[in-house]
Amino acid sequence: MSNVWGHKIKVSIFGESHGEGIGIVIGGLPEGETINLNEIIKDMARRAPGNNEQSSQRQEPDQVKILSGLFKGKTTGAPLCGIIFNQDYRSEDYEQSLPRPGHADLVAFMKYQGYNDYRGGGHFSGRLTAPLTFAGSIAKQILVKRSIKIGAHIKQIADVYDQSLITVDKEILSSFTDSSFPLIDQSVREGMVRVIKKAKDEGDSVGGIIECAAVGLPVGMGSPFFLSMESNIAAMMFSIPAVKGISFGKGFDFALMRGSEANDPIVLDNGMITMSSNHNGGINGGITNGMPLIFQVAVKPTPSISIRQDTVNLEKMKRAVIKVRGRHDPCIVPRAVPVIEAGLALCLLDAWYLEGRK
Amino acid sequence: MSNVWGHKIKVSIFGESHGEGIGIVIGGLPEGETINLNEIIKDMARRAPGNNEQSSQRQEPDQVKILSGLFKGKTTGAPLCGIIFNQDYRSEDYEQSLPRPGHADLVAFMKYQGYNDYRGGGHFSGRLTAPLTFAGSIAKQILVKRSIKIGAHIKQIADVYDQSLITVDKEILSSFTDSSFPLIDQSVREGMVRVIKKAKDEGDSVGGIIECAAVGLPVGMGSPFFLSMESNIAAMMFSIPAVKGISFGKGFDFALMRGSEANDPIVLDNGMITMSSNHNGGINGGITNGMPLIFQVAVKPTPSISIRQDTVNLEKMKRAVIKVRGRHDPCIVPRAVPVIEAGLALCLLDAWYLEGRK
Amino acid sequence: MSNVWGHKIKVSIFGESHGEGIGIVIGGLPEGETINLNEIIKDMARRAPGNNEQSSQRQEPDQVKILSGLFKGKTTGAPLCGIIFNQDYRSEDYEQSLPRPGHADLVAFMKYQGYNDYRGGGHFSGRLTAPLTFAGSIAKQILVKRSIKIGAHIKQIADVYDQSLITVDKEILSSFTDSSFPLIDQSVREGMVRVIKKAKDEGDSVGGIIECAAVGLPVGMGSPFFLSMESNIAAMMFSIPAVKGISFGKGFDFALMRGSEANDPIVLDNGMITMSSNHNGGINGGITNGMPLIFQVAVKPTPSISIRQDTVNLEKMKRAVIKVRGRHDPCIVPRAVPVIEAGLALCLLDAWYLEGRK
Amino acid sequence: MSNVWGHKIKVSIFGESHGEGIGIVIGGLPEGETINLNEIIKDMARRAPGNNEQSSQRQEPDQVKILSGLFKGKTTGAPLCGIIFNQDYRSEDYEQSLPRPGHADLVAFMKYQGYNDYRGGGHFSGRLTAPLTFAGSIAKQILVKRSIKIGAHIKQIADVYDQSLITVDKEILSSFTDSSFPLIDQSVREGMVRVIKKAKDEGDSVGGIIECAAVGLPVGMGSPFFLSMESNIAAMMFSIPAVKGISFGKGFDFALMRGSEANDPIVLDNGMITMSSNHNGGINGGITNGMPLIFQVAVKPTPSISIRQDTVNLEKMKRAVIKVRGRHDPCIVPRAVPVIEAGLALCLLDAWYLEGRK
Repeated sequence: MSNVWGHKIKVSIFGESHGEGIGIVIGGLPEGETINLNEIIKDMARRAPGNNEQSSQRQEPDQVKILSGLFKGKTTGAPLCGIIFNQDYRSEDYEQSLPRPGHADLVAFMKYQGYNDYRGGGHFSGRLTAPLTFAGSIAKQILVKRSIKIGAHIKQIADVYDQSLITVDKEILSSFTDSSFPLIDQSVREGMVRVIKKAKDEGDSVGGIIECAAVGLPVGMGSPFFLSMESNIAAMMFSIPAVKGISFGKGFDFALMRGSEANDPIVLDNGMITMSSNHNGGINGGITNGMPLIFQVAVKPTPSISIRQDTVNLEKMKRAVIKVRGRHDPCIVPRAVPVIEAGLALCLLDAWYLEGRK
Repeated sequence: MSNVWGHKIKVSIFGESHGEGIGIVIGGLPEGETINLNEIIKDMARRAPGNNEQSSQRQEPDQVKILSGLFKGKTTGAPLCGIIFNQDYRSEDYEQSLPRPGHADLVAFMKYQGYNDYRGGGHFSGRLTAPLTFAGSIAKQILVKRSIKIGAHIKQIADVYDQSLITVDKEILSSFTDSSFPLIDQSVREGMVRVIKKAKDEGDSVGGIIECAAVGLPVGMGSPFFLSMESNIAAMMFSIPAVKGISFGKGFDFALMRGSEANDPIVLDNGMITMSSNHNGGINGGITNGMPLIFQVAVKPTPSISIRQDTVNLEKMKRAVIKVRGRHDPCIVPRAVPVIEAGLALCLLDAWYLEGRK
Repeated sequence: MSNVWGHKIKVSIFGESHGEGIGIVIGGLPEGETINLNEIIKDMARRAPGNNEQSSQRQEPDQVKILSGLFKGKTTGAPLCGIIFNQDYRSEDYEQSLPRPGHADLVAFMKYQGYNDYRGGGHFSGRLTAPLTFAGSIAKQILVKRSIKIGAHIKQIADVYDQSLITVDKEILSSFTDSSFPLIDQSVREGMVRVIKKAKDEGDSVGGIIECAAVGLPVGMGSPFFLSMESNIAAMMFSIPAVKGISFGKGFDFALMRGSEANDPIVLDNGMITMSSNHNGGINGGITNGMPLIFQVAVKPTPSISIRQDTVNLEKMKRAVIKVRGRHDPCIVPRAVPVIEAGLALCLLDAWYLEGRK
Repeated sequence: MSNVWGHKIKVSIFGESHGEGIGIVIGGLPEGETINLNEIIKDMARRAPGNNEQSSQRQEPDQVKILSGLFKGKTTGAPLCGIIFNQDYRSEDYEQSLPRPGHADLVAFMKYQGYNDYRGGGHFSGRLTAPLTFAGSIAKQILVKRSIKIGAHIKQIADVYDQSLITVDKEILSSFTDSSFPLIDQSVREGMVRVIKKAKDEGDSVGGIIECAAVGLPVGMGSPFFLSMESNIAAMMFSIPAVKGISFGKGFDFALMRGSEANDPIVLDNGMITMSSNHNGGINGGITNGMPLIFQVAVKPTPSISIRQDTVNLEKMKRAVIKVRGRHDPCIVPRAVPVIEAGLALCLLDAWYLEGRK
């Protein structure tokens, strides 16, 4: 088990869904950075359940108490610890003997020999993305002061598609981060809400794809091989529960392209070297090339559904049927958007400081 | 820059395409493991250029000299260093002032302020996958003795598709590792060869998708969050040049699925807990669930093409045109197969020992 | 700045002396370990101020709140977070413009450009050893179940000396961990207390040496070179404020020995291979040899003294004089004993699991 | 086993005393640094056997072949690999069944279950300090261009003492690095040579103490707690075979000091903040304070002696006697000096780049 991430920025995550609280320690932050708590509250709200009609109604204020690392409103350079104390939960909804399909219940039980806190998924709960969002929100604030802006939109839910990001700039990314249901083409929202609503009515859930971007990156972030930007970002993204795929730029569509199409031509634009297309999503050889960083993340449907599913009673070692009770999101894609942004922000901030930038 | 990978197994890669040699140091190997050098030669040959009519004809024997860590044919527990001395290369084919589109030439020049060894891509060269294949070949041998078998096949080249892995077992994976052009459905080979040949004739290149699997994994490998199996595998895969996407199990197709379809039902099979489907590709919550581990990797078309491309002369800061000379693969997908396997083998071996297995 | 330590066990420390609280996150703990909270309270009390007449009278109960990682009294395998909320402090005693000699005030001010929380030393405070002691107390409990017992005694305070550990066993180590002023020869206590009292009366402080040992270690823990047992232990010990030296076995006295004296003869004892002396302190080539692990740590005198000292007013950039106010320990050696034990326990537990032991 | 060291600079060591060769890979070096090969040769010669009458006569030129990372005489930013191919050794001098007391033979045999390359100590050999010296030599060159100068002298051999470093500057450190037997007070050389010679004549060996310093360090290098300068340096020093103690500044003598003596008064010198003494050896709270960095390292007597010693025949599990044959140093202290310098150089370079300096 490793609850620690990062090379220069060090993030340590802890907590269980139905324990005393969840939290994160962020080491390696630069000193003297003003932290806007309202920005954090905004990002936390975007991730929080109940922020729109499609999500679950569990009412957690997700208020972060900052224990350390902040002094007179500014970072001190010492580790910053943020904690969210748990409040509204119903542990009686959970029992260990019936692992929920699609969840980590079974593997957690077997890996930890039954000693894991199984209530609400315990440490495996998607609720742990709250402290990650908190840390990422701080990272985003620091990056913005270095001209780097991050944003993500819902590219697909079930069979309803938003456009793909072609031209990316700060304005469009700001429009994403200002929304709890960010889209390029607002007209697809209705269809997306409809498929989510339909799944919910049927006790089922739907998945989707999120597309994330960053602009303002200098040329040269990342490394060849093991610290490639793609490696770092992918490792972070797959730390987020329910993510099952990631692709950069044209991603899996590269399989259908010729080299002559896939290569981004190098051109001069007002005396600056740039590229006339961005099929590689802003990265060559693991290193940022100055074009917008663009990637897509596949999010599987919420495993918690109220439809009856086959499982095994671990105590009796007999076949059983489970109908997951409680309030669950029929689609976590909208809530996952700020988590994806947070993950990217941490990756970029880590690379920024690891590589000696100021 | 980080040339080091791993948590328990520590891999350090070095070398440049047209320098004295390339190599790898593997720390943390268990002692007393017999290494079959023929198996290594076989894997190296699968990756080597010129192993089939579609690949480039640069004739590098890719013979690995083992300097340390092996004594009387067995690993000693001390770091094992393998070196491939470079022989047949034509440095005159390269110049630094004309970065090749799609390659790392431009970002390397800018990141390293022109001090990088640019010949043949230098340290960014795909040639560095040779020592990775060597290390992975050793890892595969050690894993096989622990009942874990790895194999990968070509799932797609351009618009020609092989089947997807549904039922996976050691036999099919062995058929993959015995082939330099591994497929489930051999009948698609002809079409694949044809699209490669056509691209070659036109001075162009094509991309594709590789599907990789492992069987025999115990339940419980990996961790929640930052050391999830997906995180580790993805980070490794994106260390391999030309990889631009990865997905596990149903991957991006999860977006189109309902939870009721996506969840793998938990069932009893002869008293053993298992699942009746494997949409999650053998991983739940970042941890292996005992089902075959399955993932797909997108490989972009070889950037080196002999078609004229726009670039910029870095010395004169003027627009220029480049036609990449030399012998290049019109499709690196077949050669990338053993590299993907090698990367997975290193990930699994690292997790195996990190988690205290014997 | 790195607030994270460990290879398999991952410890993250946070907090400031006069902030909301201090704490630690411990990742990588094994699951299913019963944690005896009374043992923790006992260790915390040994480190706490005011536990004897010689220490400062700041009354901090140092009560640890465990937020996560413990379920039904047993570790879950998930990160365990313990927090000590700060209560009794007098921030008005501190100002940033007058750095206290011997403390980190000046370097912290300069490194963090004045943004550090300077109150009571902030994150640099010796108070941060409280969460370390907590983590080490848990580690000690887990090690004891694996037959490894750790203990330390006061070897020297000023010019008063205890004996050196020659024969070490569980009993003597238990006598150490049961005491707030552990000694081999109890008769020296009076002299030690007297020199501390004298220094206190004169507004001054004294230093000393702590000797620490562990028994029950298997042969083979540690590695050659960079993860040698000595490297790991030393790195941890120098993380503890005021530690300025460490030596293993005969340590600096080796300089005066001949090889024929220094080498520990290898002998058979009831058919078991052992050594007839233990000059190397239980370690050869960085690896435990089965003999008791023994090392000594030099602790400098508490820098906080009420005697007038030269300093510089950082605001006015003028010479100044400081007389450190507040309640301070004239000697931190007795309170440092459980911290040294804690550090060793974490090192051994980390090595234990990193090396695949159960 | 970990053969990898460093946070930003990554060093991987490999090889066995009597294998094909030994070497090191250095990742994370800055690009564009001119490397003076003569400086490397000079440092290698200082460490090499046979460089004075007191050392062993094994004639190894210790010529390093640089395989990668250097292009047109300058670093490229890519990993630099240096290899020393082994030549003159007598493997017949060694056998596995008779572990040499004081060496790692026994622990290596037990840890690696007899699979270790035991010839000449294998991977545990002091010969592995040759590649470390090579890496450190490169680091020293890069540091010198950043105004940081490192040097070490022999402070003690047996009962013959050199002076301690009080005032330290570049000139005295240069006088150290120009010598194969560096001393402050040249008059003690004769006595040191005599005790070494006497030990040699009696088939025995002697230990000693090396004192190392660095000047030109900026205020602010290092971190509180786990990446304190002392932690990093100590971990590196204990990676060097035969090192059994380290202390910073007054080190173990702090035990005898009062706080009022031990604290370094903060003063103004020409408008610059500095300290009027340097008892803390240039480090407060784990962070450099601008004063010269000073530490001492205890080196035990060479374990290889030709005097008869008790051991156990591992094959027959019977008591035995060993008389170590071959050519061995009666005192490795002089040869260890450049190794200590190399270790410090790597630590400082790593911290330099980890902390974002240029």
